[in-house]
Amino acid sequence: MAVPPRFPRDQWYVAALSDEVGPTLLARTVLNEPLVLHRTAEGTVSVLADRCVHRRYPLSKGTLTERGIVCGYHGFTYDDSGLCTAVPGQSRVPRTARVSTYPVVEQDTMVWVFIGDPDLADPAAIPRVEWLSDPAWTSVRSMAPLAARAGLLLDNLMDLSHETFLHAAYIGSPEVAETPIVTTVDDTTGVVRVERRMSDAECPPAYQALSGLDRISRWQDIEYHPPGLYLLHIRIAPPHTLPAADGSDPGGFRTEVLYAITPETDRSTHDFWIVGRSFELENPELDRRSIAAQSAVVQQDVDALNLLEEILVADGSDYQELSVNLDTGGLAARRQIERLSARQSVPR
Amino acid sequence: MAVPPRFPRDQWYVAALSDEVGPTLLARTVLNEPLVLHRTAEGTVSVLADRCVHRRYPLSKGTLTERGIVCGYHGFTYDDSGLCTAVPGQSRVPRTARVSTYPVVEQDTMVWVFIGDPDLADPAAIPRVEWLSDPAWTSVRSMAPLAARAGLLLDNLMDLSHETFLHAAYIGSPEVAETPIVTTVDDTTGVVRVERRMSDAECPPAYQALSGLDRISRWQDIEYHPPGLYLLHIRIAPPHTLPAADGSDPGGFRTEVLYAITPETDRSTHDFWIVGRSFELENPELDRRSIAAQSAVVQQDVDALNLLEEILVADGSDYQELSVNLDTGGLAARRQIERLSARQSVPR
Amino acid sequence: MAVPPRFPRDQWYVAALSDEVGPTLLARTVLNEPLVLHRTAEGTVSVLADRCVHRRYPLSKGTLTERGIVCGYHGFTYDDSGLCTAVPGQSRVPRTARVSTYPVVEQDTMVWVFIGDPDLADPAAIPRVEWLSDPAWTSVRSMAPLAARAGLLLDNLMDLSHETFLHAAYIGSPEVAETPIVTTVDDTTGVVRVERRMSDAECPPAYQALSGLDRISRWQDIEYHPPGLYLLHIRIAPPHTLPAADGSDPGGFRTEVLYAITPETDRSTHDFWIVGRSFELENPELDRRSIAAQSAVVQQDVDALNLLEEILVADGSDYQELSVNLDTGGLAARRQIERLSARQSVPR
Repeated sequence: MAVPPRFPRDQWYVAALSDEVGPTLLARTVLNEPLVLHRTAEGTVSVLADRCVHRRYPLSKGTLTERGIVCGYHGFTYDDSGLCTAVPGQSRVPRTARVSTYPVVEQDTMVWVFIGDPDLADPAAIPRVEWLSDPAWTSVRSMAPLAARAGLLLDNLMDLSHETFLHAAYIGSPEVAETPIVTTVDDTTGVVRVERRMSDAECPPAYQALSGLDRISRWQDIEYHPPGLYLLHIRIAPPHTLPAADGSDPGGFRTEVLYAITPETDRSTHDFWIVGRSFELENPELDRRSIAAQSAVVQQDVDALNLLEEILVADGSDYQELSVNLDTGGLAARRQIERLSARQSVPR
Repeated sequence: MAVPPRFPRDQWYVAALSDEVGPTLLARTVLNEPLVLHRTAEGTVSVLADRCVHRRYPLSKGTLTERGIVCGYHGFTYDDSGLCTAVPGQSRVPRTARVSTYPVVEQDTMVWVFIGDPDLADPAAIPRVEWLSDPAWTSVRSMAPLAARAGLLLDNLMDLSHETFLHAAYIGSPEVAETPIVTTVDDTTGVVRVERRMSDAECPPAYQALSGLDRISRWQDIEYHPPGLYLLHIRIAPPHTLPAADGSDPGGFRTEVLYAITPETDRSTHDFWIVGRSFELENPELDRRSIAAQSAVVQQDVDALNLLEEILVADGSDYQELSVNLDTGGLAARRQIERLSARQSVPR
Repeated sequence: MAVPPRFPRDQWYVAALSDEVGPTLLARTVLNEPLVLHRTAEGTVSVLADRCVHRRYPLSKGTLTERGIVCGYHGFTYDDSGLCTAVPGQSRVPRTARVSTYPVVEQDTMVWVFIGDPDLADPAAIPRVEWLSDPAWTSVRSMAPLAARAGLLLDNLMDLSHETFLHAAYIGSPEVAETPIVTTVDDTTGVVRVERRMSDAECPPAYQALSGLDRISRWQDIEYHPPGLYLLHIRIAPPHTLPAADGSDPGGFRTEVLYAITPETDRSTHDFWIVGRSFELENPELDRRSIAAQSAVVQQDVDALNLLEEILVADGSDYQELSVNLDTGGLAARRQIERLSARQSVPR
């Protein structure tokens, strides 16, 4: 079972973070489908195919007016439902003049779209991430463009032992790679969980300022919702300590890391990330440090995965792998992609 | 009928503007054929295949001497007829050592070449552009390299309604897109004419300094000679005025815009342009403004068409269009390309 | 017989100059095979496949430690024999975890590798270059990356008449191209010799400062050992002089130029060069001038050959050549490549 070359179409993916979408035109390609997004006067998100019906000029290069999106080439105009409402030089608009629209749900500060068969688009299938709308939490966020297939990012995130080597300067420590993982799969939901719990580990640089500790109890609990949502629940606490029986954890720091893995094309990916915390909510300096550290870590991954993508293409079908214990999470995740891909609609 | 992927070979195309060709070697590819041009001692233009017979090094990288073109790699030497006259290290020159030459006609300040079957090269088939040699006219000119197929440039020029949207800052005004066109095709010559005449229109920025008018009568008369010559006859005058019955037009400004559309490869084009006027002949400041305005407009087209070329390639055979009234000119032009392409020689 | 598209695999090639290989990881691709080289604690050269068995991350991006090469992604560790000795998160290392190693010989200040069937790797087949280890000689050296197939570099070097045209400013003079060559092939060893001896020639710029002469006797004796080693024996002396019968040559300057032609991929080449002299051994200023002149000449070749590679690809199978007397050396060399390619192992 190799790196999945493609992700399934009949699924919800994050197309944008909510704060990326405003009253201007945003071009974004998802699963090879060029989209143009904007926030309507009503505050909802409109998602249209980013190709004028006339000569295929990208609508995202046009202008957003009160009458809708006006194409920047010849002025064909579209309302939020994708209907063409004006054609230059004639009063009649051809009945077939309409661009595709896509099911969209904005939830938990993210904009989800459905590229496949719209009849299969069930909003209830989108996983909730409660802490994103919990006032006891704050977060920082961004998106990194990745010139590598989504499967390589999924592999990367499901096996955090790479932190020890690729991210040594930020979040790596020897114990991450040394500590065995526990992998479980929920056959009903497809959710894959990978737990790695270190009771007495070196505190990596990124956590020292935060915790003031040299050695820590460190938990990394991955919760992967196929195909595109990855949640990492982190606990940092003094060594050999556990939360209380009632769940309270006065000595522990909890942080959440969310990745949304959205294929752009067969060989590029939108790598969305959100880092949340439930302490020091109003601390802009901590925000800045958090953004800097996470951006640096993500860039290390991007550099490595872009290189691997080049290698996969150059090596062609000769690609071979050897999997070991720490790959159980990644292999389980790949199986979920295969399972979801088995039954899907054809591209429209 | 989609954008023509290729233009016909058995036709004359502009390879260069006359002032580009001097006593130095000029490399230029036309219809995928690499050419080297120079002006001979007699003042005529020589056009040879730009590949040495020996190891295919481009002759344009060599030097032009009294003995002819000397290849910059091993010194094979060619006279203006393409005959190899000297080979290093031996006195005998192989009889087959000769590079192709191409029919060439210099006329109306442009250099025309014929890439296809030379037996079909009739100089009388090259359309004349009299104002280019009329002392009552002056002009500015240049060539913009376009990373898009020639058909996209033809589409662009045949439908000037795009001026309203793409060129709003220079030559666009609402009336261009709003005013219907009249399209006629001469079945004998294949010439396509598209007339758009606005009797009371907003004066676009590029014409205000020239005319001193806020509103104008504006005529745009396109005269397309397939496959590669596009003439735009422009009249700017006070609103609701017409030329006199004898053709005189004291209140009107006449300008001419010429485009020569020459395919370089299947996906790139030489976009030659000349802008002429019959007033203020000796006005270098007006020359400069004319060059600046036209260069800016052409660059807007180049940017848009380069983007469309990428989209055509990315979308592959899924490419679909919806044509409306304002496309009658462009569609008529495409039909001429198809007609001329139907019977043609095979590449030599 | 066209430019060889590929060079034979079951042959020794120079992978690096000795001084390029130290106690750090050096990535180098030879015949499409990605390699990682380093000098071991014992001083020998280790050559391993540059792909971790786990997820194919390049080992050259990892770190070299006392335990061996540690992969920079997940920490798989390899000893100098390519054996994987440590896997993170588990004590057992899979038995099949091993990367390929390659036969390697360091000789005469160059590192030779054998990419094909290792059973055919006979170190005695590597040609010796005695002057490289002779204390009476000194040298300067470097490697130029070439974005062209190795056959184009071989063509270039076997026909030095191009010096007159491509390198006029450095080592060209009219007599090089005018003087006929004598080509001989040793059918047993495959060595091709091309001699060009000018008894009274213009002294090119690069030799004037050296010799103080305006006209010279100039010998260029090529000795090509297929597939990858090219030796050029140069004698510069006063016109019409010969060495003495006992071989002594008090009025002559002897220099040696060595090229190692190593295919990187099917369309790129490592162009190693060494320039040696047996006079003024301790003259850093002469070293600097020699490096500057040879680098400039090599760059002229690189520019020309990169252009020819683009032409070969663009022209496709239409590629045609016309060969003349001065090509006898190049054609003989191509035949040796064909002969060596006829019987070879399949890629592993």
